[in-house]
Amino acid sequence: MNVVTIINKKRQGLPLTKEEISYMVDGYVKEEIPDYQMSAFLMSICLKNMNEEEIFYLTDAMLHSGNLLDTSMFGIHTVDKHSTGGVGDKTTLVVAPLVASTGVDVIKMSGRGLGFTGGTIDKLESIHGFQTYLTEEEWMKQIEEIHVCIASGGKDLVLADKKMYALRDVTGTVESLPLIASSIMSKKIASGSKKIVMDVKVGKGALMKTEKEAEELAKTMIQIGKRYGVTVKCVLSSMDSPLGYAIGNGLEVKESIDALQGKFAPDFYELVLSLASQMVALGLEISKEEAEEKVITNLKNGQAYEVFLKLVEKQHGNIEKVDIADTTYDVCSEEEGYITSIDALGLAQISSKLGSGRENLEDTIDYGVGLWLLKKPGDFVKKGEALLRVYYREKIVEKEEILKSFRIEKEQKKGTSILLKYIV
Amino acid sequence: MNVVTIINKKRQGLPLTKEEISYMVDGYVKEEIPDYQMSAFLMSICLKNMNEEEIFYLTDAMLHSGNLLDTSMFGIHTVDKHSTGGVGDKTTLVVAPLVASTGVDVIKMSGRGLGFTGGTIDKLESIHGFQTYLTEEEWMKQIEEIHVCIASGGKDLVLADKKMYALRDVTGTVESLPLIASSIMSKKIASGSKKIVMDVKVGKGALMKTEKEAEELAKTMIQIGKRYGVTVKCVLSSMDSPLGYAIGNGLEVKESIDALQGKFAPDFYELVLSLASQMVALGLEISKEEAEEKVITNLKNGQAYEVFLKLVEKQHGNIEKVDIADTTYDVCSEEEGYITSIDALGLAQISSKLGSGRENLEDTIDYGVGLWLLKKPGDFVKKGEALLRVYYREKIVEKEEILKSFRIEKEQKKGTSILLKYIV
Repeated sequence: MNVVTIINKKRQGLPLTKEEISYMVDGYVKEEIPDYQMSAFLMSICLKNMNEEEIFYLTDAMLHSGNLLDTSMFGIHTVDKHSTGGVGDKTTLVVAPLVASTGVDVIKMSGRGLGFTGGTIDKLESIHGFQTYLTEEEWMKQIEEIHVCIASGGKDLVLADKKMYALRDVTGTVESLPLIASSIMSKKIASGSKKIVMDVKVGKGALMKTEKEAEELAKTMIQIGKRYGVTVKCVLSSMDSPLGYAIGNGLEVKESIDALQGKFAPDFYELVLSLASQMVALGLEISKEEAEEKVITNLKNGQAYEVFLKLVEKQHGNIEKVDIADTTYDVCSEEEGYITSIDALGLAQISSKLGSGRENLEDTIDYGVGLWLLKKPGDFVKKGEALLRVYYREKIVEKEEILKSFRIEKEQKKGTSILLKYIV
Repeated sequence: MNVVTIINKKRQGLPLTKEEISYMVDGYVKEEIPDYQMSAFLMSICLKNMNEEEIFYLTDAMLHSGNLLDTSMFGIHTVDKHSTGGVGDKTTLVVAPLVASTGVDVIKMSGRGLGFTGGTIDKLESIHGFQTYLTEEEWMKQIEEIHVCIASGGKDLVLADKKMYALRDVTGTVESLPLIASSIMSKKIASGSKKIVMDVKVGKGALMKTEKEAEELAKTMIQIGKRYGVTVKCVLSSMDSPLGYAIGNGLEVKESIDALQGKFAPDFYELVLSLASQMVALGLEISKEEAEEKVITNLKNGQAYEVFLKLVEKQHGNIEKVDIADTTYDVCSEEEGYITSIDALGLAQISSKLGSGRENLEDTIDYGVGLWLLKKPGDFVKKGEALLRVYYREKIVEKEEILKSFRIEKEQKKGTSILLKYIV
């Protein structure tokens, strides 16, 4: 087999065989195929796509590039949750303990953020002392005790994805359905998930810009899951405006704590309720209505928050010490009217400039900085009234730059649900 | 400016600005942009194309990545010739001395072969002692004396093309109109050509598979030329079957010597006559008819051959010692009929297997091996009659594999001209 012949084949839009795809993935992991050939290959996939069969071969080759985790010892209750990434997406911090509080086992392997999307691990590390690297023994014990752990993914799982993802990030090859689907599904299957609820983000602040693309991604992941006996249920949710109030690691932890104590932004509540209910329904094999009831109960009675506190404690975090900058300034509106949209990507870039994001995996980030929305789409704002609060340390961002992300109009727009569609 | 943003823009099919294109080319030459980003960028160009403006910017950025040669001291007579590369294409060896014999100055900067296409420099090096690296002084003197030199391109001309071409070759990004056009034209303009005759090959054994693609390439190169005040005239010629009789370095030199002494394969004669006449017409500013007359005369009276002999002598070659293997075997037909086609690419690969081609620029090649066609398309062959002679040294190729390249049918096909179209 020959690398250039395989790349040429995909460049011409021809389907590749299982052997050809394995040859590329294995060769890349073994460093027999250099980065410059892999990046050309990835770009050809971005632009010429793959059929379902090819995506499955790709997922399978990636899956087998590292160790596989066997969580079958936990029976059928283990349920996983995944988001394709959005701005201000702290959902895992609330959903994982909430679902666990109903008795469903949740082993959440999370990643670090890259680009403008924060990673759950980064968010948790803003809690002083929080440990995300757990040994197999440690997380097994923790699952037995509190049904939940959130840990950085095992080092030896899906080696191909680690290399390919880092390369995609610097070669403009991130936005591709086959590459996104295989990256997500290989990691989920390798970490032993049998039941997964996927939050597929759609909109200006997400990888999938249209509902059509997101639906295609959802269907592809469901199909891949089927081949491995894995149940995948997808929620398509809007990502035009940031989710909830906070963008930034420590601030998102604070918002999660608020939420677990009953103080939710409306969009965040809607999403948490939907994802958690689906996970509980899957995990306990009950109807969605029954599951929703359990979820609402455990939010109200504080049990979900209690599990969160135990989770933090067991992973050596000090909940009293969440890193949040104590220097702030408010950005106020220069006009009066209804907020009709808030640019998620724009604010993510601003938060990143403040120090909350990284451009390279080696970059260090400032957990304490970020943005806190004081107004959400649909809200009325008076001239001079504060729109958001900037939490900063070394760098600041000009007010004018931030105001560009807010669209204020005379007429109120009709409110829409953050939930767009269920695909199961 | 940001590399990933530029790659993303091209991936989405958007036109790039002059500054963005320069940023990529300059950054790559200065090694600030790594191979893996450049190869993703090149693949995005392959699949999303460039408009005329972008191709011009690309050519210009490449052109200025190295030194420029000033040949204006030779006045308006200097005429250049270029082929987009075909199997058995030894045309330069005959055309350059032939045109020079009419008094037109020909400075031919040639390259080495890569893949299945032989380079003129490799062919000439099969002549014992032939020197292709000439100092500026040496070739200036040679032009004054015999109007022609064939040399390997200056080391410092179009540095970007050297790096980009090598990368394209190993990343499946060779077949792309913008990349081919900018590569050819930047080299031609950098080496000071003001008048160029292009042999654009079309067919199974060429980069351009269809006449439509070849015509587009021709028109693009003509337009780029215009921007620099360079006259470009294109001949579209067929490259389904190998050109002439020989494939392989020493053998192609032998065929060229035969041709300069009047023994031509019909297709080779047609092509030489057309290219040489156009070059002479351009160089001497006379009509194509007058030019053709001069060309035919100098072929017949031996003056073209005399210039060839002087060229070899001046560049220290010994014409008595052309490297040709003395071990041969003939491959005979297993059926009777008319040869309707000979697969150029198939035979090029076979010749390469014998040792005449290189896969990497570091590979050494065997100048003496190759193939000599004893029959051409249109010829009748009896069962057991020889189709071609294999010149070999260490490796041989099975008869069955070679026979696959010949198509033999009961009915004779209508003969067609190798010349498809002129685009000026």
